[in-house]
Amino acid sequence: MKKHLVLIDGQWRQSAGQQYFQAVNPKTKEALPEQYPVSPWSEVEEVIAAAARAAETVRSWPGSRFAEFLEAYADLIDQRSGELVEMAQLETALPAVPRLKDVELPRTTNQLRQAAKSARDGSWIEATVDTAANIRSMLAPIGPVAVFGPNNFPYAYNGAAGGDFASAVAAGNPVIAKGHSSHPGTTRLLAEAAHQAATATGMPNGFVQLIYRMGHADGVKLASHHSVGAIGYTGARSAGLVLKEAADKVGKPIYLELSSINPVYMLPGALAEKSATLAEQFAGSCLAGTGQFCTNPGLIILMAGPHAEEFIKQAVEKFKAAPVGTLLGEGVQKNLQAGIAELADHGATVLTGGSVGGGAGFCCQNTLLRVKAKQFVGAPEALQTEAFGNSSLIVVADDEAEMLAVTRCLEGNLTGSIYSAADGSDDALYNKIVLLLRQKVGRLLNDKMPTGVAVVAAMNHGGPFPATGHPGFTAVGFPTSIRRFAMLQSYDAVRPNRLPAVLQNKNPTGTLWRRIDGNLTQADVPATS
Amino acid sequence: MKKHLVLIDGQWRQSAGQQYFQAVNPKTKEALPEQYPVSPWSEVEEVIAAAARAAETVRSWPGSRFAEFLEAYADLIDQRSGELVEMAQLETALPAVPRLKDVELPRTTNQLRQAAKSARDGSWIEATVDTAANIRSMLAPIGPVAVFGPNNFPYAYNGAAGGDFASAVAAGNPVIAKGHSSHPGTTRLLAEAAHQAATATGMPNGFVQLIYRMGHADGVKLASHHSVGAIGYTGARSAGLVLKEAADKVGKPIYLELSSINPVYMLPGALAEKSATLAEQFAGSCLAGTGQFCTNPGLIILMAGPHAEEFIKQAVEKFKAAPVGTLLGEGVQKNLQAGIAELADHGATVLTGGSVGGGAGFCCQNTLLRVKAKQFVGAPEALQTEAFGNSSLIVVADDEAEMLAVTRCLEGNLTGSIYSAADGSDDALYNKIVLLLRQKVGRLLNDKMPTGVAVVAAMNHGGPFPATGHPGFTAVGFPTSIRRFAMLQSYDAVRPNRLPAVLQNKNPTGTLWRRIDGNLTQADVPATS
Repeated sequence: MKKHLVLIDGQWRQSAGQQYFQAVNPKTKEALPEQYPVSPWSEVEEVIAAAARAAETVRSWPGSRFAEFLEAYADLIDQRSGELVEMAQLETALPAVPRLKDVELPRTTNQLRQAAKSARDGSWIEATVDTAANIRSMLAPIGPVAVFGPNNFPYAYNGAAGGDFASAVAAGNPVIAKGHSSHPGTTRLLAEAAHQAATATGMPNGFVQLIYRMGHADGVKLASHHSVGAIGYTGARSAGLVLKEAADKVGKPIYLELSSINPVYMLPGALAEKSATLAEQFAGSCLAGTGQFCTNPGLIILMAGPHAEEFIKQAVEKFKAAPVGTLLGEGVQKNLQAGIAELADHGATVLTGGSVGGGAGFCCQNTLLRVKAKQFVGAPEALQTEAFGNSSLIVVADDEAEMLAVTRCLEGNLTGSIYSAADGSDDALYNKIVLLLRQKVGRLLNDKMPTGVAVVAAMNHGGPFPATGHPGFTAVGFPTSIRRFAMLQSYDAVRPNRLPAVLQNKNPTGTLWRRIDGNLTQADVPATS
Repeated sequence: MKKHLVLIDGQWRQSAGQQYFQAVNPKTKEALPEQYPVSPWSEVEEVIAAAARAAETVRSWPGSRFAEFLEAYADLIDQRSGELVEMAQLETALPAVPRLKDVELPRTTNQLRQAAKSARDGSWIEATVDTAANIRSMLAPIGPVAVFGPNNFPYAYNGAAGGDFASAVAAGNPVIAKGHSSHPGTTRLLAEAAHQAATATGMPNGFVQLIYRMGHADGVKLASHHSVGAIGYTGARSAGLVLKEAADKVGKPIYLELSSINPVYMLPGALAEKSATLAEQFAGSCLAGTGQFCTNPGLIILMAGPHAEEFIKQAVEKFKAAPVGTLLGEGVQKNLQAGIAELADHGATVLTGGSVGGGAGFCCQNTLLRVKAKQFVGAPEALQTEAFGNSSLIVVADDEAEMLAVTRCLEGNLTGSIYSAADGSDDALYNKIVLLLRQKVGRLLNDKMPTGVAVVAAMNHGGPFPATGHPGFTAVGFPTSIRRFAMLQSYDAVRPNRLPAVLQNKNPTGTLWRRIDGNLTQADVPATS
């Protein structure tokens, strides 16, 4: 049984730790043979120190250097895609095709390449020049970024390859990747490619590092360490809040993606027009990837009536008929069970499913629950428990007032969707709901399920707490997501030759957009100033 | 003795509170006759509810509406400037001329007018459109903002008129102003003008509200209330951290400006060239406004040698010769004394001053302390205690290594200044220092004292913790400071007629800059999409 190495300060080397762990194949529930180390604090400290040195080395490098690394890395991932798909399928039980090979892996390399483009064109930098006051400002790297990846996207959110990684690097920051324990092999393969790309493109030792696991107390120490610039975390709420408390205490930016139940409203007119289509869209969205998406539709809000009953009936049928997918692991299965139990304990009725089993390995029946709006409003916190996986709760309101009351109770979410009639008959209600819902979600959708997350500049994969830790930022989309890992730096009367290239009079690329004396322009700063 | 009213939900009315307080004239140490209420929690809750209603009312208003209010308000402040200067002078002992009348009041109305311009031109909104994915995003108001103003700028940072107020309003948010207890009369006059402007420009009740004081526990409840969108706080670190903890716990953005000692390096060559000039600049900057600026130079870092001794000698002479100014209040005097004592307890030698007295009212002698770099590095936390007021600590390093060690110990600050020789002889040392210092300060200055804060877009009045709570934001400058009070909102397949005007195909003003399919442009979105 091979004991794997950690990547520290430019070297793959044996961990100083004594403990090792193994991933589990979710399909067979058997431990995979390879062993991965748990790093002790002394090792984490070495990682931080190496990252800090790397940060100083690359501080003044042009964005093109980071772009070259990101592009080389994306190319290497493409080259190793067969190996990566095989490993991720083994560790996560996600379908090789289309999910891993044709969707998530291309998304991941696309993200790295988009980040490279932003690093090169400086579109995230917000360079600003005020000539009369002789003050200039820009966004600049915040310092080493520790990225904690989640279980559900072995590539696209991986600490060593995902969106946080790409954003942090695009801003010029070294990354300390913390792999998720459910897919260490996939993370290792990615980090190998990253290390190879880093070497090939001349990045310093310590620019990309990987540790697989550490004690919880050491995670807290990492998140609050003075040499760490920021933290990106995607995962369970409980662990995320522990890191958040530690980082907050020392005023360190931490960007979290914690949980979201993604309310979907199906207004009466829309249901009247096409309840069968909506039931099909809903079931497809909720059960894809065994429901293990951050944007999974976990809460459906309906107005009582025959069309609602028809929708529910059809949704139940589809949930029953659909094959039961495998979950990412035992923990996910346990949490899903606990979540369903919590909902049921607070008055929700199980319409279908609700029990462990029904498929291969770790799994749980496709589950639909139902609750009255009155009950929801009476126990809003419990009834917004995230049952992460192939499960959803339907809330049925008796009237408009109840539907609005439900909306007022909603916590912050990544997304909120409203289906309304094509003929405009739902518009008055839509307007009332959206006035409340808009402030509670990062992304508002019309007539569409929330599970697709396009990697475009206007995407907001973010939202108010507890979906994330700050509603002003997105984890997906370039150049926007880069801003999280930047600090604002102003230069006041700094001598011209000492200014960063992007703030000097001459536009360094000829195409960089800058705000000069209040006007966005690609021109040079007038020479007289 | 007149009992003053609170401004709640569009009405000046008697507080429900039983307790009242009076401001104190710092020059005479006598209580001023007018009484101001301490609001009980029930009243604070009413304020929050009214602000939440106002937020819903104005949600979809165009920026021009907020601009009209801000401009009307600035005009009314100008009209009442005589009264405002008289009151602020009484309450703060800051000089009427030039400080209050010719500097701070014009800065305040300038800020309001710049905020109005940004509200009107939408330069803070970051409108983004991706036509192929049909996703559009923008920054949008975050919700009611509670602004806690500090003691040292009765206008420019006032909860009811200052930079946070202007930024929050420009983003379209109602403001709950919490006045500082040291200048309630000034705050009242400002809020009267704000209310008059709000009425004249058709803002809803609850858009601008004022409470003067509340219990500490109620401040915590306010900062974590679900209907409050964000908090702006400028003031003492201890109280700020209590609010931060409360807000962080519920993931609510809180923007703090806590404390800063603003290190100033005078490199050997610069001292050799002009130590007398530098001593004069330093004394002028440190003693202006009795040193009560967030950007006061509280830490001077020198290399040992005859030029450093000459600089110190001249600085001491100037500190001795300069008149002793009055401090803002008894609390400031106490804290200054305690700060000086803390520095002395940890090995700093008092070169001049150090005792209470020497001027009129609450005051303390102009104070200079000195400590060796070795000692500083041995007790960096204690020796970075902010002695807010007319006091500064000089750190003398024996060599370059010591100077860099001091730099490595520095906490986050708003500013960092480096004076270096005109002939380039300091450049090698400059480069080593700046590599470390740059990441620790929001604004880097060359050959200049940090006390001037120009209100321009490139200003960064911010910096890493503990100077502020997040290094990515500035409290001064437009449109940049507005971003703090905004959330990111994405629209995914939302029907065209339901989109906010700034995201519709037609550019609503013809001049709004938007990022359409990756390109910054003022054009309409192509009609085909």
